Amino acid sequence: MWAVSESSVKRWSDSGALACVRTPGGHRRFTMQALLDFQRAGGAGRDDGGADHRGATADATQLDLAVAGRDWSRLQELYYEAAVAGDEAAGAALLERAFQDGISAIESKERILTPVLHLIGERWRRGELNIWEEHLASQVTLAATGHLHRRLPRAPAHGRVALCGCPEGDLHEIALQMVVETLEAEGWRAISLGPNTPLFSFADAVQRFSPQLVCISATIVHDLERLRRDYKHFYRAARHHAARIVIGGAAFADPQVHDIFLHDFRAIGLTDFLEYVRREFPPSDAAT
Amino acid sequence: MWAVSESSVKRWSDSGALACVRTPGGHRRFTMQALLDFQRAGGAGRDDGGADHRGATADATQLDLAVAGRDWSRLQELYYEAAVAGDEAAGAALLERAFQDGISAIESKERILTPVLHLIGERWRRGELNIWEEHLASQVTLAATGHLHRRLPRAPAHGRVALCGCPEGDLHEIALQMVVETLEAEGWRAISLGPNTPLFSFADAVQRFSPQLVCISATIVHDLERLRRDYKHFYRAARHHAARIVIGGAAFADPQVHDIFLHDFRAIGLTDFLEYVRREFPPSDAAT
Repeated sequence: MWAVSESSVKRWSDSGALACVRTPGGHRRFTMQALLDFQRAGGAGRDDGGADHRGATADATQLDLAVAGRDWSRLQELYYEAAVAGDEAAGAALLERAFQDGISAIESKERILTPVLHLIGERWRRGELNIWEEHLASQVTLAATGHLHRRLPRAPAHGRVALCGCPEGDLHEIALQMVVETLEAEGWRAISLGPNTPLFSFADAVQRFSPQLVCISATIVHDLERLRRDYKHFYRAARHHAARIVIGGAAFADPQVHDIFLHDFRAIGLTDFLEYVRREFPPSDAAT
Repeated sequence: MWAVSESSVKRWSDSGALACVRTPGGHRRFTMQALLDFQRAGGAGRDDGGADHRGATADATQLDLAVAGRDWSRLQELYYEAAVAGDEAAGAALLERAFQDGISAIESKERILTPVLHLIGERWRRGELNIWEEHLASQVTLAATGHLHRRLPRAPAHGRVALCGCPEGDLHEIALQMVVETLEAEGWRAISLGPNTPLFSFADAVQRFSPQLVCISATIVHDLERLRRDYKHFYRAARHHAARIVIGGAAFADPQVHDIFLHDFRAIGLTDFLEYVRREFPPSDAAT
């Protein structure tokens, strides 16, 4: 790339002038965008017109190899770099390339995006990443999965309605979006109430939409007393409309939370969620 | 549509079986989706196969007339119905129809979406709408503006970078998305840090990306003491990188908040924001 010494790169990096991301293995990695930003800011003091193209080609080859070999840890590294650098185009391109090679959207979400987001969350908690990097990763992931979702084939609409949301206090919308996308690909009308929806209001929406399915995604919840009180009303509304209740997310690993949310199915991931939905709502029963 | 009496409709509506939305004028309105949901749930006890098509045609004619006549209050009513009903397709179709007729994306955002979202927020505060309706309206709006944005022509990329976010405690991402979309259409690389970004971390991202422009969108903020302390660091970082600072949003109407956020420009809406950006960053100066 540039004819500069490793120590120069380390110095620029340590000074903050040239941003780097750390790979899951702890190595310093510079994204093409960071190098270009640095170059534009005059950091290297010279212009290497060919770097962009050569770098992009190298990236594409790495990605092709990782996709072809189903090298999940390498794919995670590549996605991690795109996510932390705020590079929506690279994140979307990775998912699209994987999909073209036969990796389903759900497989990408479970084996690439979810582990990377967990790692980023963990690194942020350990003080190794800044909040803005965690925010960028979320924005990139919402954009990239949305991009792939719009390209996916969809089952014909069968008229069933699913109502999905996160309970009050939970702001983790990525898992929720993945659930909505999974259902839409199956032909459902999936209505997202979004993050942070009080259960009493969620219950009211159940009355309004008479869904066949309600999905509650929760990563972190607080105020169990309020959830317990509101959930009773929610549960009655769902039962009254004969809606199945599916819960999913890290919050339900806590037995205290799990016990509040009486449910028909607890999904561990998108794969078992999809299996449940297909089993309980076979195509032959669909409304027309 | 159906041969039923007005009193039947009112009874179904009052019982909650048939959902209605209230127009800005306070009238009961039933969306096509609500009627279909109600019909599917067996509410009317009979099947009227033609209702869907005829209803959609009537809606399309209403929309065409409102667009052609630049009837903003009628367009707001139509968008209000789509938003509160969670009808993303109708919301997106309205914006697309308006765009086809020469109403710019910014005009739609300022004259249709923003007033409707304000009204919905106001009605929610007055207890006339449920939280889930406000949430649905947000989801519909994010989806609909994103849909239109992907169809918009874009100015060629000129290499300038804008960093955009909401400060800590502010969760209002719609205005932020509109700012990002406005900049992207102008050829900027607009990086969104998303809602609820602490200013100390925003400052760190400024160091990383050396943006020419930073945009702070804020609707409601708390903890002015923390903002005051963190903003000093943020301001120094922006000045160090010679970034212009633009603020916008209802939070800055409060003089106490306004005084904390030293800035180069306070945008009242997207139109004056765009004028400022074009004036301060004319195309001839663009990096290549």
